[in-house]
Amino acid sequence: MTITIALDAMGGDHGPRVTVSAALAFLEAQPEARIALVGQPEAIQAELRRMTAGPDERLRIVPATEVVRMDEPPAQALRSKRDSSMRVALNLVREGHADACVSAGNTGALMAVAHFVLKTLPGIDRPAIMTAVPTLNGHVHLLDLGANVECTAEHLRQFAVMGTIVAAAVDGKDRPTVGLLNVGVEDIKGNEVVKAAAQLLARSGLNYAGYVEGDGIYTGTTDVIVCDGFVGNIALKTSEGLARMIRAFLKEEFGRNALTRMRGLIARPVLKAFARRVDPKRYNGATLVGLNGVVVKSHGSADAIALRNALEVALREVRYHIPDRIRREMEPSPQRGLA
Amino acid sequence: MTITIALDAMGGDHGPRVTVSAALAFLEAQPEARIALVGQPEAIQAELRRMTAGPDERLRIVPATEVVRMDEPPAQALRSKRDSSMRVALNLVREGHADACVSAGNTGALMAVAHFVLKTLPGIDRPAIMTAVPTLNGHVHLLDLGANVECTAEHLRQFAVMGTIVAAAVDGKDRPTVGLLNVGVEDIKGNEVVKAAAQLLARSGLNYAGYVEGDGIYTGTTDVIVCDGFVGNIALKTSEGLARMIRAFLKEEFGRNALTRMRGLIARPVLKAFARRVDPKRYNGATLVGLNGVVVKSHGSADAIALRNALEVALREVRYHIPDRIRREMEPSPQRGLA
Repeated sequence: MTITIALDAMGGDHGPRVTVSAALAFLEAQPEARIALVGQPEAIQAELRRMTAGPDERLRIVPATEVVRMDEPPAQALRSKRDSSMRVALNLVREGHADACVSAGNTGALMAVAHFVLKTLPGIDRPAIMTAVPTLNGHVHLLDLGANVECTAEHLRQFAVMGTIVAAAVDGKDRPTVGLLNVGVEDIKGNEVVKAAAQLLARSGLNYAGYVEGDGIYTGTTDVIVCDGFVGNIALKTSEGLARMIRAFLKEEFGRNALTRMRGLIARPVLKAFARRVDPKRYNGATLVGLNGVVVKSHGSADAIALRNALEVALREVRYHIPDRIRREMEPSPQRGLA
Repeated sequence: MTITIALDAMGGDHGPRVTVSAALAFLEAQPEARIALVGQPEAIQAELRRMTAGPDERLRIVPATEVVRMDEPPAQALRSKRDSSMRVALNLVREGHADACVSAGNTGALMAVAHFVLKTLPGIDRPAIMTAVPTLNGHVHLLDLGANVECTAEHLRQFAVMGTIVAAAVDGKDRPTVGLLNVGVEDIKGNEVVKAAAQLLARSGLNYAGYVEGDGIYTGTTDVIVCDGFVGNIALKTSEGLARMIRAFLKEEFGRNALTRMRGLIARPVLKAFARRVDPKRYNGATLVGLNGVVVKSHGSADAIALRNALEVALREVRYHIPDRIRREMEPSPQRGLA
């Protein structure tokens, strides 16, 4: 099956400079895939020339005159930029010309425009941002990472359903376990929303494993962890910040003098193997789950390697028919219909 | 000035085994300090004998018959354990027999009992848990770390005042900067409470520097960062979990085979210097700020070195008269009194 991904060529901190080279590398690795590069044709063409890319029938350019700025308010992007690369890419998905949209653009705007263009799946009140993060024994699917700064217990239940479907499909798990992020594991812990969500999850039919604390994210105690978007965003960005600090400290210590530099040289192969395991590029690509279509958000600062990973995430979500699986799961069962 | 610290000798995962040896090490390093070891005299005496500690007039045992379990509900600890080591230690502070209380016991119970025994300072609605965490360029004071899972904007403002006072006193900063933890730095970002808190902080007279994202915690952009206790707890525990995972991965990679072990041996002095910089033991000891007295909570799993650090934190808070400084700051100013 041929899969077409609409790539917002103008999105991210680097625009076509990164998106075009990521697209070319991705197409080389994925013979079944096609890419629609959406954006300003001159900018894209110039980059293709720079990369000395020959004509490729699997790569086409879809023009869009506008660009959503990284700091543009989502409402403004939605109202006044009807011909933005982001919006045109999403339109391609809605109209069936593409199977997925990938963008490294402004997260809030992508969320708002994707929600408006594609709509949520029946039974899903709010789309959520989901990603896999590495753990001691593999990875965990974490959501919501910032789409919804205020959530009800029912929203958290829906996130749990969607996370379960993705973990089941992508990881081939039979009944993925779901944890609820909280400030403690005892029943009395947490705020009112979390406590109510725990009750909903306990009788949801999902494989609910109870509360998980912040450090439990990285122990890999469950396959899925749900939380509201405020908390999820803070947990993820705090992790990014800590990882950067640790990297800076390691570099500083190994760079202190000639002797430590020599020690660093000898340790380098091991440090590189270590760095690969926690490389954020390998984990780039967060899904906007719950929409009528596959939408993947790349980190704005992603380089071509990281962005290519986001394209792979989109390809996988299309192959596993994630939106269809969620739709089927959320369909009223016959019993419910009769009740 | 002689400072007496009431140490809950039974608290924490290890009880007297850790508390007694931490107390002895602390007294040796701090000739002005005294310690009241509060708990079951036999258990404490046994440990003192094991440590072959001679009589020391600066160390006394204050009996308490009960122990609050690590998993005991706070309400139960408060209602039914009137002679717990935690409670008796706090009573010593209230009655002026001790200047501070340090406990590695159940956080929720310590919070509830300390609140009940010592009461909050005038103008402070809720005590908060505060600690310093390492950053790229020093450290940042972060609060609340879990005392209040639901906060109003006014609570966050009070946390900002308390954080400012501690940063000014402990770090000798003139006008410490305060950041508000949020999911983005733009005005439109965040939930309603955070947005309202931003308005209060902007006109508070504090050196308010705006929103800080999760990764900003470790860049050290501000001297103080405030957030509600749910978010703060998740940020802190997520960091602990990630740090543990990174340590485990490093160990695994260096332990892979004879060659990597050899490389590790050569890199060891540098890795040790690095580890010292992020050693959680050095940052053990969170203050329960906003109470009529100094109360410091140690990590439950703390060893003697980490617990000794919590004792040092308490000593410093007493020396800087933190509760008095907060009381003076929160006093209605003459203008306000006339208004």
